[in-house]
Amino acid sequence: MKKIGVALLGLGTVGGGTYRILKANHDRIMENDGVDIEVRHIIERDVKKAEALGVDPAIVGCDIDKVVQDDKVQIVAEFFGGIEPAKTFLIKCLLAGKSIVTANKELFSKHWDELEAAAKKGGAGLYFEASCVGGVPIIRTLTDSMQGNNILSLMGIVNGTTNFILSKMADEGSDYAETLKEAQNLGYAEANPSADVDGFDSTYKLSILSSLAFRTKVPVPCIYREGIGKVSKDDIAYGKRFGYTLKLLAIAKQNGDKIEARVHPAFIPNDHPLASVKGSFNAVHIVGDNVGDIMLYGRGAGDLPTGSAIVSDIVYAATKAEPKYTSFDNRNDVSTEKFSTDFECKYYIRMSVADEAGVLAKISGVFAKNNVSISTMVQDVAADGAKLIFLLHKTKESAVNASLREIESLSCVKSIDGIIRVEE
Amino acid sequence: MKKIGVALLGLGTVGGGTYRILKANHDRIMENDGVDIEVRHIIERDVKKAEALGVDPAIVGCDIDKVVQDDKVQIVAEFFGGIEPAKTFLIKCLLAGKSIVTANKELFSKHWDELEAAAKKGGAGLYFEASCVGGVPIIRTLTDSMQGNNILSLMGIVNGTTNFILSKMADEGSDYAETLKEAQNLGYAEANPSADVDGFDSTYKLSILSSLAFRTKVPVPCIYREGIGKVSKDDIAYGKRFGYTLKLLAIAKQNGDKIEARVHPAFIPNDHPLASVKGSFNAVHIVGDNVGDIMLYGRGAGDLPTGSAIVSDIVYAATKAEPKYTSFDNRNDVSTEKFSTDFECKYYIRMSVADEAGVLAKISGVFAKNNVSISTMVQDVAADGAKLIFLLHKTKESAVNASLREIESLSCVKSIDGIIRVEE
Repeated sequence: MKKIGVALLGLGTVGGGTYRILKANHDRIMENDGVDIEVRHIIERDVKKAEALGVDPAIVGCDIDKVVQDDKVQIVAEFFGGIEPAKTFLIKCLLAGKSIVTANKELFSKHWDELEAAAKKGGAGLYFEASCVGGVPIIRTLTDSMQGNNILSLMGIVNGTTNFILSKMADEGSDYAETLKEAQNLGYAEANPSADVDGFDSTYKLSILSSLAFRTKVPVPCIYREGIGKVSKDDIAYGKRFGYTLKLLAIAKQNGDKIEARVHPAFIPNDHPLASVKGSFNAVHIVGDNVGDIMLYGRGAGDLPTGSAIVSDIVYAATKAEPKYTSFDNRNDVSTEKFSTDFECKYYIRMSVADEAGVLAKISGVFAKNNVSISTMVQDVAADGAKLIFLLHKTKESAVNASLREIESLSCVKSIDGIIRVEE
Repeated sequence: MKKIGVALLGLGTVGGGTYRILKANHDRIMENDGVDIEVRHIIERDVKKAEALGVDPAIVGCDIDKVVQDDKVQIVAEFFGGIEPAKTFLIKCLLAGKSIVTANKELFSKHWDELEAAAKKGGAGLYFEASCVGGVPIIRTLTDSMQGNNILSLMGIVNGTTNFILSKMADEGSDYAETLKEAQNLGYAEANPSADVDGFDSTYKLSILSSLAFRTKVPVPCIYREGIGKVSKDDIAYGKRFGYTLKLLAIAKQNGDKIEARVHPAFIPNDHPLASVKGSFNAVHIVGDNVGDIMLYGRGAGDLPTGSAIVSDIVYAATKAEPKYTSFDNRNDVSTEKFSTDFECKYYIRMSVADEAGVLAKISGVFAKNNVSISTMVQDVAADGAKLIFLLHKTKESAVNASLREIESLSCVKSIDGIIRVEE
């Protein structure tokens, strides 16, 4: 029986979940996969965490060099999160020939090139299934199941916190601020929620997924990012009228010879497979030229779902003969010319206008001048004045922005209250 | 560059799709996966099919021994379907050390043990991703991504023909017979539709998927099977009233120390992830004790979606070092005691009754006597008499069947018109 030594860096939520899964499934993995996995080191300051999990105190410590120097450790699973000290530790391990398993999307999306260079030098492997969409095998799908496809697009709900908030706002007609507070109370959102609600977390994941899908590095700064902070319950309610559901989407598409990658709130039709992904669930929808549409769905976070992905990577790394590296240049200084910044989208626009004759003619005149074509217009007279809602046909963002700047300056327009892209 | 010789047995729909994908993606696969895949033989009687695809006639023939004797062929992809001659050919190839890639669910579900024995003897691999749910990587998910899970249940829509028919019946309120005819005209159903509509195809796939999920062979005859032939548009319409969608489900669950495996039409709540799987799409929903709920969705059939899975298996077989065999006993003569036959289900029952006093008391009396508990009852008085619809709480099938036999013999009951299980 092949014996595989493992070190766990950190014993927080996912680290603890991983330890529990490895312990509970030790014999099953031995029987099914032919490897005897032994946790030989745990790097963790908080001894109580280790005690609570029944870990032998002798293997718990703070000295990463013990891990690096232990020849019996072949695989190191990292749970620190963030860039440092994770990066320095992992590079040390990789150079020492130890394969890395990680859920650290920020580190991976920003420093994949450096990690891979160290991995190649050390002859070690890099495994990061857990970095995106928890226990859902999205990375493995992109690397091991799409070889006969030119992937045309990838669109996903990859952040559970924002999906929980948007689902709750839609179900209960509640405001963003109060829903965020509720999510924080329930533990679905952090005290400082920015990484989630401002879309950073989604851009890290989209960077990893789209790089694999399009076989070219899609650096985080090349991804357009817009969070959910400005989403209003009114827009969600109007969207419902048009048969739309609002989601924070991570989207990457081939657009001619360019790639467009963006994270922003978007309306999707209620019968789109992603529309029924509710609460803290995640899903990624991929279109390949041969496979057609596929979607993978599941819990995007949590100790056991993410731990499940970590364990699957540990077993995968332990049983596959050779580490595989990316075949594309994964440096961050890729030419920004590869990326389109002027997307074409359908749009939903909500504005408050003066309740007087000629308003619609003026506004539609501006759209027409900018070659922006209106597909639907709804006028609502509310207590606080008239509202106009436009659905626009697919248009270049630059044309929409130019129109809106002009419309905003019209004296009959009080304010532009909602601008949401529509994906289909 | 590693050169991999491939033979294709058959050039029908999926064989042709595979050839086209291999040709179009040859350089991409070389670049990304480091293998140069060459199609060296195609076994096909119909030379015109080969001509239409631009295949070099020199590699087309009918002599399987040429494939077996060609040392440069490492991988054989089979597209004959059915048991023979596929089985004999594949065993020859496996014994000669050639790995097999196949979409043949009937052969695989019935003779996995013999194929694997030959594979072990020849040191070859067995790859069958394409046998279930087309290009969706469900096999790879079960083998490579669930190692840290005890899989509790697996529930899927694994047949596109029946899902197309049921979706159309629901959308249009049409009858089974006319919808089947339409499906046949559109090419979604075969002239002899039995394999699909009677559920055979689903049982083959469920046998393969549940064997992998529960790591014990689930032979086809141990799977309860009921097709969609008796589904009435009235039941679909009543189901809608209760918030249910009707699907032909393939279900396998751990039930105490037994496994229950069954294929039958079932109502699921409209907000279940499987309910939105429409038309010819397929999906499989898995619950693992650690990963929680995951679902994979996509096209279950077709030349290119299934060809995509075949090509992914060819590349997988070409790039992984060692074939992996099942760790469980996969003989068909497994003890039938492993399998539960008296399932517990919720039930929907529709019956025609005399429009007179005391009917409900008599019927509910029979249910009570058999310890069957009613959750909802709806009475409908139609032109052709009174209808009673019952939703029953979770109950042993034996108790429901005993009740229904007794109810059927009541003089106030004209007929039992619909019996559909409800899954949640």
